[in-house]
Amino acid sequence: MITETQLARFDSIPLDGGMTLEPVQVAYETYGELNAAKSNAILILHAFSGDAHAAGTDQESGGLGWWDNMIGPGKGFDTDKYFVICSNVLSGCRGTSGPSSVNPATGCPYGMTFPPVTIPDMVRLQKMLVNHLGIQRLLAVSGGSMGAMQALEWAVAYPESVAAAIPIAGTARHSPQQIAFNEVGRQAIMADPDWNEGNYYGKRPPARGLAVARMVGHITYMSDQSMREKFGRRLHDQNQFEVESYLRYRGSQFVDRFDANSYLYITKAMDYYDLTAERNSLSSAFENVKSRFLVISFTSDWLYPSYQSLEIVRALRGRNCDVAYCELPSNYGHDAFLVTVAEQAELVRGFLASTFRERA
Amino acid sequence: MITETQLARFDSIPLDGGMTLEPVQVAYETYGELNAAKSNAILILHAFSGDAHAAGTDQESGGLGWWDNMIGPGKGFDTDKYFVICSNVLSGCRGTSGPSSVNPATGCPYGMTFPPVTIPDMVRLQKMLVNHLGIQRLLAVSGGSMGAMQALEWAVAYPESVAAAIPIAGTARHSPQQIAFNEVGRQAIMADPDWNEGNYYGKRPPARGLAVARMVGHITYMSDQSMREKFGRRLHDQNQFEVESYLRYRGSQFVDRFDANSYLYITKAMDYYDLTAERNSLSSAFENVKSRFLVISFTSDWLYPSYQSLEIVRALRGRNCDVAYCELPSNYGHDAFLVTVAEQAELVRGFLASTFRERA
Repeated sequence: MITETQLARFDSIPLDGGMTLEPVQVAYETYGELNAAKSNAILILHAFSGDAHAAGTDQESGGLGWWDNMIGPGKGFDTDKYFVICSNVLSGCRGTSGPSSVNPATGCPYGMTFPPVTIPDMVRLQKMLVNHLGIQRLLAVSGGSMGAMQALEWAVAYPESVAAAIPIAGTARHSPQQIAFNEVGRQAIMADPDWNEGNYYGKRPPARGLAVARMVGHITYMSDQSMREKFGRRLHDQNQFEVESYLRYRGSQFVDRFDANSYLYITKAMDYYDLTAERNSLSSAFENVKSRFLVISFTSDWLYPSYQSLEIVRALRGRNCDVAYCELPSNYGHDAFLVTVAEQAELVRGFLASTFRERA
Repeated sequence: MITETQLARFDSIPLDGGMTLEPVQVAYETYGELNAAKSNAILILHAFSGDAHAAGTDQESGGLGWWDNMIGPGKGFDTDKYFVICSNVLSGCRGTSGPSSVNPATGCPYGMTFPPVTIPDMVRLQKMLVNHLGIQRLLAVSGGSMGAMQALEWAVAYPESVAAAIPIAGTARHSPQQIAFNEVGRQAIMADPDWNEGNYYGKRPPARGLAVARMVGHITYMSDQSMREKFGRRLHDQNQFEVESYLRYRGSQFVDRFDANSYLYITKAMDYYDLTAERNSLSSAFENVKSRFLVISFTSDWLYPSYQSLEIVRALRGRNCDVAYCELPSNYGHDAFLVTVAEQAELVRGFLASTFRERA
């Protein structure tokens, strides 16, 4: 499956912070065919560092999509049956408008003058894209980690437009530990003199700070056990352990594909997201929800532990929502949703089939 | 109890790396009185960022010792009964020779020319200090975290000189996850241009990098639950959560009392320490051990999880050593050994009393 990222442009988007971004561009990919009734569309929502290229082989770079093991013919999100869409989030750096985009008012990249963005803002842009593609109602929305936050927000903000939501390894709000790890990453970036208050475009980017931030992230995505299995205490050379060279490599590699200011904006959006905040409780937040739910978490995921998924499940059940929950066994930590796919794919396949049968 | 840090100087110390450090200085404090038989001495071993000031009120700064809740009259380490010693580790920055010390050969601080130091090197200097104080055999050695590594090393390297060892919240070797968190801290420091390959003495120190390193450390010392209880999602002001301002404060505070190069040296010593390495197994490492043991871990400590203490306990039991193990319930994570003291003090008190009765 050869894929190509496409762009959609809109005149403007209103933001939660009160500002309006104009114009706004969104990068997206689609896989499979939209049926005549336009009832088989699934929106995939990427995690913090993901992009629109969720599946297939990119025609330019040759790179495989970040969830290619879940999306494709005969896979969990079966492109023989469903029309699958994935877009890069607002404030991202992979084709959608973000801090590295040029501000038409100045002719220069926005940098830190890009307006603050929330998870609901990201979802609002996705809704505009879905409308633009002529789709009134999605069969399903699904994503892991930050993607799970967006899936929840879709079900809450656009209850008529989502038949089913599949939040995976997610939460309705970050714990202080999750905020703390993000804050370390932000501080590492802002401590790099090359960050220069966000004005580094066309100059040397804050590569060292961004690499350190990514190293912290990678540790939290793995589990103690998966790290022991993958690296043990093996030495890479006399002066470093394999785990050290791995993290350094992943850190430096990240710098080539990610923008440091987007790191700041997106992690802030995650940290400030709190479905319970305006509505007093999670149960109240789900008051008008009409979707059915499949909630998935993983045993070894200590960054987004199962109790956070269970909190969502309990609140939905309290609202008499149709909700299935599964905690899958895995040693891969938070990465499990990207790595451990056999059982996850099976769950998703069955859930989508019954949703399509009953609600499409 | 008003205390004062003292200094001992020795002509030289041979190091595991093959080099000799000359001269060498060690900062230490003592509490209580050495009995006539010199049989009531306990050596306290500090964790990564600790120092010789373990108990009482420092006569200069007025600061309380880092384990004051455990050491003093009537406390776990009862200074009415025992003579308690604590010294700053080799390569530290709180009075003992380290990278910030002046190299007599050049008249300038060593910086990164300070020789690499191992946990056994640290213990060797402690042995010299103990000899210097006229003590042949310690009643006990005890410490948490890196202090636990040193307690194990004492029992292995100087079996005739230790009646009892109390390693708390420790391990016989770092897991790749523990190495990885340390490596993030090191990379954060070395990414700071002010680090300047370690040559920053008399200039601006790498304060931003060291602060980021400390922030990561603090997250790993707490537990998910203790962070939820302490901070929740409360805002410090409109732009930051309380957990963020706490971490920033602790990070910036650390810069005033710790040397970045010592951070690099000490974390490397911890990461390379592996009691199983030269002797094939932990059981073989304990072959000549003569001490009795009290091993303590804490339920919510995910940085030094209980399975690491249990590994030590199993190996000691396999050698028919006298070993008691206790996993104490606590929500405080790795910090528990500094914070949760009631049960810990009780365990230590009883264990020391029976050791003194039977083995002193």
